[in-house]
Amino acid sequence: MRMAELSAESGVPVPTIKYYLREGLLPQGERTSRTQASYGRDHVRRLRVIRALIDAGVGITGARKVLDTLDDPPPDAPTLLGAAHAAVTPSYDSPVSSPVSAEAEELVERLGLPVATCDQERLADVSRALEILRDAGFEVPPAVMSTYLRSIKDIATAEVADVPAEGSEEAVRYVVLGTALAEPLLLALRRVAQQAATAERFSTGG
Amino acid sequence: MRMAELSAESGVPVPTIKYYLREGLLPQGERTSRTQASYGRDHVRRLRVIRALIDAGVGITGARKVLDTLDDPPPDAPTLLGAAHAAVTPSYDSPVSSPVSAEAEELVERLGLPVATCDQERLADVSRALEILRDAGFEVPPAVMSTYLRSIKDIATAEVADVPAEGSEEAVRYVVLGTALAEPLLLALRRVAQQAATAERFSTGG
Repeated sequence: MRMAELSAESGVPVPTIKYYLREGLLPQGERTSRTQASYGRDHVRRLRVIRALIDAGVGITGARKVLDTLDDPPPDAPTLLGAAHAAVTPSYDSPVSSPVSAEAEELVERLGLPVATCDQERLADVSRALEILRDAGFEVPPAVMSTYLRSIKDIATAEVADVPAEGSEEAVRYVVLGTALAEPLLLALRRVAQQAATAERFSTGG
Repeated sequence: MRMAELSAESGVPVPTIKYYLREGLLPQGERTSRTQASYGRDHVRRLRVIRALIDAGVGITGARKVLDTLDDPPPDAPTLLGAAHAAVTPSYDSPVSSPVSAEAEELVERLGLPVATCDQERLADVSRALEILRDAGFEVPPAVMSTYLRSIKDIATAEVADVPAEGSEEAVRYVVLGTALAEPLLLALRRVAQQAATAERFSTGG
């Protein structure tokens, strides 16, 4: 199909498609003349993935890293997961300067991962997230933190249990896209659940 | 204290403090001369909250909305929660054009909230998050979705159960800051937990 059809089919405007082509996010079509190229179903699928990543807040740089990982996946599941995480983690303006806190290490251990084997970037993320809370003078109460750990562990266990058989293209898509694209869903569900719990606790009766 | 001490105390550079003062995020200090003002502990605390919000990715506009809610909180808990959610929700470039999906409504009901009473913005968020996944050709398997709902419900229930007695300043801080600032922690914990679960499932033994 031509560029105009690709745009109609994918719902992505032509100038945006041209931008993705220039940025290398979308592979070039097959040249059919000096000024025209032909695009296929793969381009439609790819455009949908790009749009989904951008909508999920990954940004152009993050989208490129996710797509690179999809195109050239690492051979084993743990390495693939690390690459997927790195791809969807925003690179902060300033590197973490402060050392990883003992509290972050404790949380990682409580999630069942020996600190020594935890990906250093992930450990730094946890430490940074705790720092954000502490800087605001906000402490997560111990009972709430225990629920966080137990619930998040349940979520991750269910997610990983469902990864298709190792090495398949399906597994790669699942890990890479599932990691990035499920975040908005989890956060949106949390807010709805908070509204439900608040209504239950503070209902005025009557 | 003077501006330079406020900077040293809070760790926020003087030009940034001046920017927050101009933007109205930080209240003016008490004038002590034509060119100087004096700042107190409240300013230090406020600066820490601003930094935490910015670090959590809320942005200047979001930070302003959160601070406005802290300064002038709605009287009852459900309204407060709605204001807190609105403050920390990024405003998307394009409004939701598509109608809320039946799937989104079903998830909200499964979280224990009748669709009719669900905040429309939250419902739209869930619908949009599902759309992002669908656009990428990614479907959350039913078993994983059930775990999401159960775990997120547990998290929200624990969070709301721990909100201090209604109406207090502490309750307001808890709801407004806890909603925004715990998100990076939950997402960071999820990745660590995924690494733990992956190591467990795909360990090569030996």
